[in-house]
Amino acid sequence: MANVIDSDVFLAFSTYATIAILKMMLMAPLTAYYRITRKAFSNLEDTHMAKTAEEKKRMLQVNEDVERIRRCHQNDLENIIPFVLIGLLYTLTGPDLSTALLHFRLFVGSRLIHTVAYVMVLPQPSRGLSWILGMVITFSMAYRVLTTALLF
Amino acid sequence: MANVIDSDVFLAFSTYATIAILKMMLMAPLTAYYRITRKAFSNLEDTHMAKTAEEKKRMLQVNEDVERIRRCHQNDLENIIPFVLIGLLYTLTGPDLSTALLHFRLFVGSRLIHTVAYVMVLPQPSRGLSWILGMVITFSMAYRVLTTALLF
Amino acid sequence: MANVIDSDVFLAFSTYATIAILKMMLMAPLTAYYRITRKAFSNLEDTHMAKTAEEKKRMLQVNEDVERIRRCHQNDLENIIPFVLIGLLYTLTGPDLSTALLHFRLFVGSRLIHTVAYVMVLPQPSRGLSWILGMVITFSMAYRVLTTALLF
Repeated sequence: MANVIDSDVFLAFSTYATIAILKMMLMAPLTAYYRITRKAFSNLEDTHMAKTAEEKKRMLQVNEDVERIRRCHQNDLENIIPFVLIGLLYTLTGPDLSTALLHFRLFVGSRLIHTVAYVMVLPQPSRGLSWILGMVITFSMAYRVLTTALLF
Repeated sequence: MANVIDSDVFLAFSTYATIAILKMMLMAPLTAYYRITRKAFSNLEDTHMAKTAEEKKRMLQVNEDVERIRRCHQNDLENIIPFVLIGLLYTLTGPDLSTALLHFRLFVGSRLIHTVAYVMVLPQPSRGLSWILGMVITFSMAYRVLTTALLF
Repeated sequence: MANVIDSDVFLAFSTYATIAILKMMLMAPLTAYYRITRKAFSNLEDTHMAKTAEEKKRMLQVNEDVERIRRCHQNDLENIIPFVLIGLLYTLTGPDLSTALLHFRLFVGSRLIHTVAYVMVLPQPSRGLSWILGMVITFSMAYRVLTTALLF
């Protein structure tokens, strides 16, 4: 076990995977912030500060700013979790440290750009290209896992 | 490998991670139960028991009870998966068994309370606080991973 | 570490987990394909090819074909990620290779059938049964993890 957690590639993986997951998790407080400032909730019990039934109802309407953050969060779930899972298997194939670092850094960078492009409503193709870059990096790691492990 | 799976922290992690994931997975049969009892589906091919075209259409309407379970399931995806991924890396940093158990037990407890608060529509802040507790525990484990592994 | 990645069960797990995750990730380009061919987007900045404000608005309407792919993708997130996480812990309990292969192959097969049934709108219960089979396989692996590790 000491061998696993002492390998440089594994330490690098731990660092970048944790940063990517933390970035993803921060979308939740950001959603909460938008829900509170836009007064847009999805659960009736969250509208207890409303004074009238009409105000409660208005607070349950869909808000486009909140939905945008939620779509960004969903895109993170769809991309960052596969990166971490395939990245773990990739790390165990024993890649070069420099090649592994290139994968991990490009992925985390691409997802930071993706989030900024999504939340700040930057013109396309900024969001699209950063999403594709992240996908390509995960596919590249998956290719190494399959060519190393494909015996069955 | 015997070292990894014989360590007490790893056995504890395996147990609590599996319990948390099973709890998350049980939201799916619960959604199915609500869909069937509320007759509220999202796919046309699921409404084959309807006799008229009008009844089919009514069965495809959004039902608030179903949506509540789905939001709870989504919140599990956003919180339990990061806990398991970061918890695995945390386990490999070799924490004290008692500290690790405190993290794992508080997290699983917080998510059980979160689910009950969500499904039973308990008044806030029961759901909000249990969600925040789970986030804080995952952040605490991420902090240890980063301070142990942050070399790159 | 060599022990871990040289074990046949781990190589089999790496292969099938990667195939399952890649299948899940391919739902994203498929969604993009449907969004472009159906001209149905969720973000205003994605409608830059529209010539009039009215056309932009029409492009932001919900499209049932796109929603179907997104539901299939969501179902993958809810099922394939638990399979990979519990499958990793299951692999570390040291199961027989033939038993492990049976689990991995049936799961990947069930999810391929699930996707075809969802996207091609096959009549029920094809989609329902393939979903249940995948759940049962993951529960079976979770049972072994808990009976091996349940000490806490």
